[in-house]
Order: sequence, then structure tokens, then C-alpha cells
Amino acid sequence: MRIAVDAMGGDDAPKAIVEGVMLAKKKFPDIEFQLYGKEAAIRQYVTDETNLTIIHTDEKIDSEDEPVKAIRKKKQASMVLAAQAVKAGHADAVFSAGNTGALLAAGLFIVGRIKGIERPGLMSTLPVMTGNQGFDMLDLGANADNKPEHLLQYGILGSFYAKNVRGIANPRVALLNNGTEETKGSELTKKAFELLSQEPSIHFIGNVEARDLLNGVADVVVTDGFTGNAVLKTIEGTAMNIMGVLKEAILSSGVKGKVGALLLKDSLHDVKGKMDYAKYGGAVLFGLKAPVIKTHGATGPAAVATTIQQIHTMLTTQVVSKLVSHFEEEVDKVSQ
Amino acid sequence: MRIAVDAMGGDDAPKAIVEGVMLAKKKFPDIEFQLYGKEAAIRQYVTDETNLTIIHTDEKIDSEDEPVKAIRKKKQASMVLAAQAVKAGHADAVFSAGNTGALLAAGLFIVGRIKGIERPGLMSTLPVMTGNQGFDMLDLGANADNKPEHLLQYGILGSFYAKNVRGIANPRVALLNNGTEETKGSELTKKAFELLSQEPSIHFIGNVEARDLLNGVADVVVTDGFTGNAVLKTIEGTAMNIMGVLKEAILSSGVKGKVGALLLKDSLHDVKGKMDYAKYGGAVLFGLKAPVIKTHGATGPAAVATTIQQIHTMLTTQVVSKLVSHFEEEVDKVSQ
Repeated sequence: MRIAVDAMGGDDAPKAIVEGVMLAKKKFPDIEFQLYGKEAAIRQYVTDETNLTIIHTDEKIDSEDEPVKAIRKKKQASMVLAAQAVKAGHADAVFSAGNTGALLAAGLFIVGRIKGIERPGLMSTLPVMTGNQGFDMLDLGANADNKPEHLLQYGILGSFYAKNVRGIANPRVALLNNGTEETKGSELTKKAFELLSQEPSIHFIGNVEARDLLNGVADVVVTDGFTGNAVLKTIEGTAMNIMGVLKEAILSSGVKGKVGALLLKDSLHDVKGKMDYAKYGGAVLFGLKAPVIKTHGATGPAAVATTIQQIHTMLTTQVVSKLVSHFEEEVDKVSQ
Repeated sequence: MRIAVDAMGGDDAPKAIVEGVMLAKKKFPDIEFQLYGKEAAIRQYVTDETNLTIIHTDEKIDSEDEPVKAIRKKKQASMVLAAQAVKAGHADAVFSAGNTGALLAAGLFIVGRIKGIERPGLMSTLPVMTGNQGFDMLDLGANADNKPEHLLQYGILGSFYAKNVRGIANPRVALLNNGTEETKGSELTKKAFELLSQEPSIHFIGNVEARDLLNGVADVVVTDGFTGNAVLKTIEGTAMNIMGVLKEAILSSGVKGKVGALLLKDSLHDVKGKMDYAKYGGAVLFGLKAPVIKTHGATGPAAVATTIQQIHTMLTTQVVSKLVSHFEEEVDKVSQ
């Protein structure tokens, strides 16, 4: 399998990216890596050249670039070339830690949607506090407005992912709503509830509330991109703030507090570990013809390697090909 | 001033409610309390009968009752009678710790909307981690679908509240969005951004992201009821889960962890105190002809007293009357 890597995306690129690739190479000798970016800068961190090609380019997309414009104008950018490689059939997946909006645009306009999927969604596996399984949530913000039909497709996409990539036999799919009762919701969620209830290919368990997300109430949670984005950022902001307040309270509490914190170090570390969802890999722009995966810009080599492992599983299990077949059959049914 | 109290709403009613009223009575001798509910049960906790009337009724709305149906069928319920008292001009505000949906329905159908306000919103003052000021957010779920015009009205409502009740001279009003740039957003937020930008009576500072809510980026944050509900429940769920994981990690960490936790007790208490937004009072169903205030069902006497203080401030500052005048002028302008 061949993974096209945007080596120039992220805060610590190309260092963190290439070092992560080196870590992944040890574990997965079956991956052929294509690294797009400044050759001299990349080469500094390459310790093993087997199954690895560097495709030099001087251009790159910056985090502050306007996404769609950047994709159209910077035709030689490392991210664009990586996406082009997939389109041309020279690579099987794209990895980037760069500008999220630009990667979404590259995914949509260069890699392209699976036939029958209207609006690919951004999906991450988020942490569950009561276990190590996590849950998949989409759309986390690829779209600002969604229709009920999109939410149905997210249920199918998420279910395929949980089954194939995470190995959950019969994933529980739920709809994020403002109450658990069937009659609850906005115009969008009421219609989405109906569609999800009638879909035979998924195990739909009904509505879940945002309060219970981290409790493991479902394996897949679908929502529109605006709400998903708000919920994800609220989880991050709340967690960051609580840990920040705790740290400040400890620092200002004198010797007693500092000794306490030292004794509690492991416990505090446990909490951070539970909340850190980089352990599940990156965010998938799901619904495209190939895996297009984004990790956080501040990501280090270990998280890059974890994300490559995730791509490896997506390619091994052929989850995208299976989706293509599923939606082709759906399209055929409708056109008959 | 006269406050109609639903003495039967909440998990520990009428005990917690009446005890809270007794606490508030000491501080505010100018309040005349009307307590609606079972007289014998209420009387057990009454320690001072000055400025207090008990209006006996056997009926009450339960937490599992279907809101609108309950309001219509249980015409003698304590909550319904409290709302009727305001409508009839016998009381100036309603307080309840009961069924939220039913209180919203009682507010809308019995107390009634301010002329010119289309969709009253549920508003709470939420905690800010970097200070003690907090911020007002609405709509937290009174509505499942909102139009851009509603969000503009929420900006005006929130600004009036922050100015009059919280004493903030020039409240910074922000729109919750999926990015801070002006061009970002859903169809709803893009249009709401335009309307908020053009409103001369408020100090609109643009978009904020959910990640920054608890950092004090704004004094008032407006959003649609579906998103607001999801964000509020996500804050609650994330905070509860993190504290839960921390507790569990401490309990399973042996003597070292337990000693550490003991030493850190004050710091952990600080975090809980920061997150506890009951200190700001209850949730206001804002946009009605009188203050209609809801506190959490699990609330104790101290939080009941704090909420009564909040109602006292709302009545003293005449924030609702000021809103009535503001929107009357707006309606007049349009009809001229």
C-alpha cells in the first residue's frame, strides 16, 4: 500500500512528520511512503530510505491560507501534490497535519466523493471515560449546513468504520439530539431520526444527549457539522480549562498543594491519557474515494505513527472500497 | 415586590425550596413571597411567616410529565397557579425548580411574550475560568429551531441583562460560530452576523468559537437553542466526566494518591467552585412579560436563595420593563 504524505503540514513540519513516518516504517514494512515537500529539509530526518520516495516541491499551504483559494492557486503545494497522487492512482491514501480547511477542499475537489455520497463528513474517534473503546462522531465540521439525508449517510459511514476499522461487531449508531425521546428535536433531527430508524444496514439505537457522549452510550454518533464542531470544541475547551484551573489552584496552594500534586501525578496523568484522543489516530474526511486523514497541527512523531497505523488499517480492511460498493448498490436501486 | 414560588418543583421539594425562601427572607425584607403547593408540607419548613402567603393546592407537575399537556390539563398545579398569579397581576415574577419544559410552556402560554419578541430564549450565566464575572448565553434550549432574527433579539436581551442585572457597562455580545472569521458559518449564523453587526443598541464583537467560551471572550453569547443546548450539556458532561475519572484514579492509586488528594482538597474544591454556575442564580426564560426563573431540580436551599436574589435584582433594576419599552419602540418604528 502507498501513502502520500504531506511532509510540510503542521507546526513542527517536516521534523515531526518524517520522524513519525520513520517510527511507522519499523512497524509496517508493507507501506510505501511518498513524502511531498522540501527534499533537503525532509532528508535530514530520514533514517531509512527503503520503501520511501521524496517528491520535492518548494510550495506549501500555510495554516492561515484561505482553503479553497489555496488549493486552486498553489498547484505545486505539498498537500495538493499528495492529493493529486491519489487521484492519478499513484497512491492509496493522503496524510496531512496541515490546514484542515485546505485538506477538506483537496479531498473534495481532487480526490473526489464516493458516488452516492452527498456531503463527506469529518469524523474522529473520541474518548469514552468508562473504557478504552471510544466512539466515532461525524460530522465534526466539514459542513456548516446538513440535510437529514446527510445524517443518514453519516450513520452508514460511521457504522462501516466502527465495524471494519475498530472491529465492533454491531456498532450502536445514535443521533445527537436535545432529548432522548423519539419526539424531540429540530426539524433536521426529527427527519434524520425517521431516516435512521428505517435504514436496514445499521443498528440505530435512537437519540443521545451531549451530556452522555463521553459515557460510552453509543459507538457512532451522528450530527450536523455545525453542532458537531461546537460539541468537539466545547469538549476540548472545557477539558483544557478544568485542567488549567486545577494547575493554577495547585500552584497557588503552597507547599501542601504541591506535595499533593506530586503524589497525585499518576492520577492526573491518567485523566490526561483518557482525554487524549490522538491515541485513536487522526480525523478522517469520510465519504471520499480514498482515505484522507488529518492529524492535529501540534502533533508529535508518536501521534503521526498512530495515524499511519490507522490508515494502514483502513487500507487493509478496505473500508473505503466496501463503502463504494455499498453506495453503488444504493445508487443502482434508486435508478432502477 | 411579589414573587410567586412553585414550592413543589425539584427533587427535594418543598423542603429545599421553603428553606431557601427562609434564607432569602432574612436578606430581602422587601419581598412578599407567595408559596404555591401543599400547605401542610410547606408549613413544616416555614420559620418566619411575615410577608409570606401559602396558597394551597394538591396538584403538581412531575418531572416526567409531558410539558404542554401538563400545563393544559393540570390547571391547579402549583407551577400553573404561580404563573397565573403573574398573569393576573398578583405577583411580579415566577420561581420554580420543577419540570423545565413545563415552565417554558407556562411562561409562553400563561405569562406571555413581550410584544415584538418572537421566541423567548433560555438564558443562564455560565462560569468563566479566568475570573468571577461569568457570561450570559442564550438560547440554551427553549427552541429547537431559530431564525436569524431570533438570534438578533437574543443579543439585545442578553445585553440588557448583562448591563442591568450584572452591572456590566458595555457588554461584549458575540455570536457562537464555527470559526472566528466574519465569512464563517451556517446559513443561520451568517445572516445573524449581519443583523447583529447592524444593531446600534448592542456592542457586537463578532464570532466566538465554543473552545473559548469559558475563557471570558464575551459577556453575552448568542446561539440557536439546539446548539446552545448541546454546548451546555457538553460542558456539564465533560466536567462531570473529568472529575469522575480523577476521583476514580485517586481511589485506585493507593495510599499515596489518597494522601495527595487530601492535600489537594482545597484545590479540587476551587475547581468545583469555578465550574458551579448555580452561584449566578437560575436560568431565565427571557423575553416574557415578567421574570420566569428556573433552578436546577437538585438545587439546595443556598442556591434557591441565590436565585431569589437574582430575581430581586431583575425586579429592582426593572430589566423586563426596560425590555418592554425597547421592543415597543422597535415595533412602533416598523409599523410607522
